[in-house]
Amino acid sequence: MQIAILLFDGVTALDAIGPYEVLARLPGAELRFVGREVGTVRTDNGFLGLSCDRSIDDLERTEILVVPGGFGTRALLKETSLLEWLRRIHQTTRYTTSVCTGSLVLAAAGLLDDLEATSHWAALDELGALGARPTRQRVVEQGKVITAAGVSAGIDMALHLAAKLVGPEMAQAIQLGIEYDPQPPFDAGSVDKAPPAIVELVRQALARRNRR
Amino acid sequence: MQIAILLFDGVTALDAIGPYEVLARLPGAELRFVGREVGTVRTDNGFLGLSCDRSIDDLERTEILVVPGGFGTRALLKETSLLEWLRRIHQTTRYTTSVCTGSLVLAAAGLLDDLEATSHWAALDELGALGARPTRQRVVEQGKVITAAGVSAGIDMALHLAAKLVGPEMAQAIQLGIEYDPQPPFDAGSVDKAPPAIVELVRQALARRNRR
Repeated sequence: MQIAILLFDGVTALDAIGPYEVLARLPGAELRFVGREVGTVRTDNGFLGLSCDRSIDDLERTEILVVPGGFGTRALLKETSLLEWLRRIHQTTRYTTSVCTGSLVLAAAGLLDDLEATSHWAALDELGALGARPTRQRVVEQGKVITAAGVSAGIDMALHLAAKLVGPEMAQAIQLGIEYDPQPPFDAGSVDKAPPAIVELVRQALARRNRR
Repeated sequence: MQIAILLFDGVTALDAIGPYEVLARLPGAELRFVGREVGTVRTDNGFLGLSCDRSIDDLERTEILVVPGGFGTRALLKETSLLEWLRRIHQTTRYTTSVCTGSLVLAAAGLLDDLEATSHWAALDELGALGARPTRQRVVEQGKVITAAGVSAGIDMALHLAAKLVGPEMAQAIQLGIEYDPQPPFDAGSVDKAPPAIVELVRQALARRNRR
C-alpha cells in the first residue's frame, strides 16, 4: 500500500502525524513524506523539523494521498505547479484525503468543486469560497475524497479509511495498538461544546495569526 | 515556559507529537526537541525523520520534560549517560512526563521507584520489573511525575498538564484549537473494550516486534 503525506513549511504536525501513525500500521504500508524538495520543513510554530524524503516531482502515483493543514497552506493556494501536481496525482489515487486546512489546498486545486467537505471549524467559510460545500462533520467522505476536521480529526479519518481498506478487525487492531481510547479532561473540542467565550477567544487568535 | 521533548531512533512519532501539539500552544512556550546529538532521528517504522535541534549535553534545565516511547526505548534502558542526564534534568523540572513506553526509560533511570505509573498496555509488566507500580489508567500523576498510556494518550496527558499549568480555560482553548472532539469509528482503544481476539493479535504482533 503506497501512502504519500504532503509536507510544507508551516504544516501543523499533528495533522500529518495522526494519519501517519494509523496508516503506517496497515499491512504492507509503504509510507513516504513528500514535499516540493527533499529536505527538512519546519512546522507552523517553528519548533519542529520534519523530513521530506521525496520530491513531488518524483512521485507519479500513490494509492493514498494525505494533505495536512496548517498556516502554511495559505501560501500553497497560489502555487500553480503544486496544484497541477495535486490534480495529476489525484487521478492515480484510491483515496485522496485531507486534514484540517489541507482541504483548502484540495479545493484550490479544484478537487472539491461542488463536493461536501470539511476543514478546521474556523476555516469553513474559506473552504466554501474555494468551491466546496462546507459541512461541519468530523470526517466527510465523497467518493474517493475524504476530508477531516481540525488537527486531531486526522486520527479518526485514518481509522475510518483503514477500515475501508483492510476491514474493521484490522482497523480495531490499529486503534488498540495506538491505545486510542480518548479521555480528554474537558469536553471542549468543538464549537458546539466549548463555552462561547472560549470559541471567540480561539477564533480571534486564529484570525490574528492568519493575517500575519 | 521551557519544554523539552526527547527524541531518539525508534521513537513512536505520535507519542511525541501529541504532547507537542498541545504544549506548543501554551502562552510563551519555548519548545525544543532534544536528543543525544543534533541531527535527524528516524521513527520506529523508519518512515519519518524528525529533527533534534539540541543535544541533551547542552540542556541543563527545563520546566517540562516529555519522554515519548517506541521500540527504540529498549536500547535507551542501558544507556548510562542518558539515564544520568534524566536524573539530573529531573531535578530541574516542574513536571517530568512520559508517554507510552517512555515510562520504561524514566523507570530505568530510577525516577519511578515505588511510584504508580502507566505505559502502553502491553508494556505494563516490563514497567513493573523496572521498579514502578504499574496501573492501567490513561494518565497517572504522582507529584511532579506524570505518565500516560500508549501512543495517543499523550494528547490527554498534555491537556491535563496544560490545565495544571495555565488553568482550565486555556486548556479548553487549546483543545478547541486542535479540534479534539474524538470520534473514533470503533470502541476498541483499550484491552477492556477491544474484542479478545484482537487484543491477542496485537499482543503477539508487538511481542514479535520487540524480539527483533
